[in-house]
Amino acid sequence: MKEKNRQIVLANRPKGMPDKETFHFVEQDIKELEEGEVLHRTLYVSVDPYMRGRMQDAESYIEPFQVGKVIEGGSIGEVIESKSEKFQQGDIVIGMFGWQTYYVAKEKEIRKIDPSLAPISTHLGILGMTGLTAYFGLLDIGKPKEGETVVVSGAAGAVGSVVGQIAKIKGARVVGIAGSEDKISFLKDQLQFDEAVNYKTAADLKEAIGQACPNGVDVYFDNVGGKVSDAVLANLNRYARIPVCGAISAYNLESVDVGPRVQTTLIKKSALMQGFTVGDFSNQFQEGAMQLGKWLQEGNLKYRETIHDGFENIPSAFLDLFKGNNTGKLLVKVADRQYEK
Amino acid sequence: MKEKNRQIVLANRPKGMPDKETFHFVEQDIKELEEGEVLHRTLYVSVDPYMRGRMQDAESYIEPFQVGKVIEGGSIGEVIESKSEKFQQGDIVIGMFGWQTYYVAKEKEIRKIDPSLAPISTHLGILGMTGLTAYFGLLDIGKPKEGETVVVSGAAGAVGSVVGQIAKIKGARVVGIAGSEDKISFLKDQLQFDEAVNYKTAADLKEAIGQACPNGVDVYFDNVGGKVSDAVLANLNRYARIPVCGAISAYNLESVDVGPRVQTTLIKKSALMQGFTVGDFSNQFQEGAMQLGKWLQEGNLKYRETIHDGFENIPSAFLDLFKGNNTGKLLVKVADRQYEK
Repeated sequence: MKEKNRQIVLANRPKGMPDKETFHFVEQDIKELEEGEVLHRTLYVSVDPYMRGRMQDAESYIEPFQVGKVIEGGSIGEVIESKSEKFQQGDIVIGMFGWQTYYVAKEKEIRKIDPSLAPISTHLGILGMTGLTAYFGLLDIGKPKEGETVVVSGAAGAVGSVVGQIAKIKGARVVGIAGSEDKISFLKDQLQFDEAVNYKTAADLKEAIGQACPNGVDVYFDNVGGKVSDAVLANLNRYARIPVCGAISAYNLESVDVGPRVQTTLIKKSALMQGFTVGDFSNQFQEGAMQLGKWLQEGNLKYRETIHDGFENIPSAFLDLFKGNNTGKLLVKVADRQYEK
Repeated sequence: MKEKNRQIVLANRPKGMPDKETFHFVEQDIKELEEGEVLHRTLYVSVDPYMRGRMQDAESYIEPFQVGKVIEGGSIGEVIESKSEKFQQGDIVIGMFGWQTYYVAKEKEIRKIDPSLAPISTHLGILGMTGLTAYFGLLDIGKPKEGETVVVSGAAGAVGSVVGQIAKIKGARVVGIAGSEDKISFLKDQLQFDEAVNYKTAADLKEAIGQACPNGVDVYFDNVGGKVSDAVLANLNRYARIPVCGAISAYNLESVDVGPRVQTTLIKKSALMQGFTVGDFSNQFQEGAMQLGKWLQEGNLKYRETIHDGFENIPSAFLDLFKGNNTGKLLVKVADRQYEK
């Protein structure tokens, strides 16, 4: 007799900061496979800030989660049983099946990954959407030139840490903004950022960024929004570019996020600010993934993962994102591989 | 004996709204011409919102005015006396010699214009920096496609009225925002805008713009900033483009201009916001001026000028800009031509 499938569903739409009551655990039978279908067991699930947005019932670039339905998101699994000619027991697959322990997928819902290239978890991180987000946001919107100054906020996070490293590869001077001394050390010592600013301890953040960027800011990769971004915008150079990737400071606000309006700054500096999501670049994913894999194999890209253990700990891992507790990509490991090939 | 040159100089840097005390009138002798120099009498001076920015001692794309020095700006003059082979008495010239009745220019400071093509005042407006600002901001940043919806604020102003007409030429649906029923009629009846919204009388501006744009907003040409822009941003379509040309609502604020932060909107809509000044496109001016001249001659572009009369009325004309009293380009006529050719 098969195990039951355990799911984490959205219990209600949170107002402000989500908590454990935002989620319910449910169990259900695993359905019988039909022709062309594949049963896999989840090994890792991805836990990302953008998921907070999907908990709202608001128009956005991606459909909101449904109350009572499983939380969707990037996951990696191992094929347990297959009625598809394309997948075999033991294959490692990636898809958007989310926070559940088993999933019966149609062929087109999953994609095989090669576990010999890099640890499989990297396909949810530096070789996956996270890495591609950094790659396209920085290179297609930020367009850093050699010798320019690139500032990245949320710099020790999953996307930010890749942004800074790609900017270094492109010959830019890189300044990271993060919220703990551990993260500052990680950025400077492990990732070789040129400077790093602790936004929590800086007496005057605008001035601290100015000091870390004596030639001004040419590219600002914005992961956080809010007061951190206000302070960076006060240090822009003429013709600065600002890829706007995330605004984690605003995701749990219950009121309108208010701050200095940007129009006058944008005019004075002839600066560009462009919001994006990785899906905007989907027809270039292959190019990006190949380049990221190459840099990783050459040792030019480092990554850090924070891996929590156990399916039941997914909600607390997600809530950690908003406490600034994680460095690098945040994942939850749900099971070990069973059919090591 | 020659007349004296009268100048309007910056008396002090205004805090908040400038007033008549911001300006002083002074007189000085007109210097003798040296070889290669040209004396001209001012016929028209241009009065523009961006000049408010130059009254501050703040870093910007253009140098601040100096206290005690003449207010610089676009002007048109008639050559009275010439020691240059390139200019003759009676030539009509354009330059940045500003608010004074006479000016001794070096050859490279002025450019001859052809008074047979169009009224000479249009070279300060639709055929000059004003028209070029509209042209490049809309086409190079806004990139409107046929059938898309283009919204322009400050729509009855010098730049806005050209933006909307170019957008119509490009096949877009055009919605203007302005602040009086006279201006609304001008936009709809004279310029054939598809819709126009009076921001002063709309009960709920966000909703009024939503109703005027049933298919959402693809391009927003922003001349004003502030609450009007907040309301337009709430109606953006995915992949919207926002050329940020002016923020007249903020120019006379004494405190920081505060409003809803834009980051979350930009991300949700993958939208682009780009500040610019016409100088960013200086290497394309010739192309732009030719196209504007062609449209004007074909009758595809209409323009309206508000022309005040008399040198002594320049300050009050300038102050009118911030009261929303003018439609189209605001000019002051300082003298009549003397040497009609």
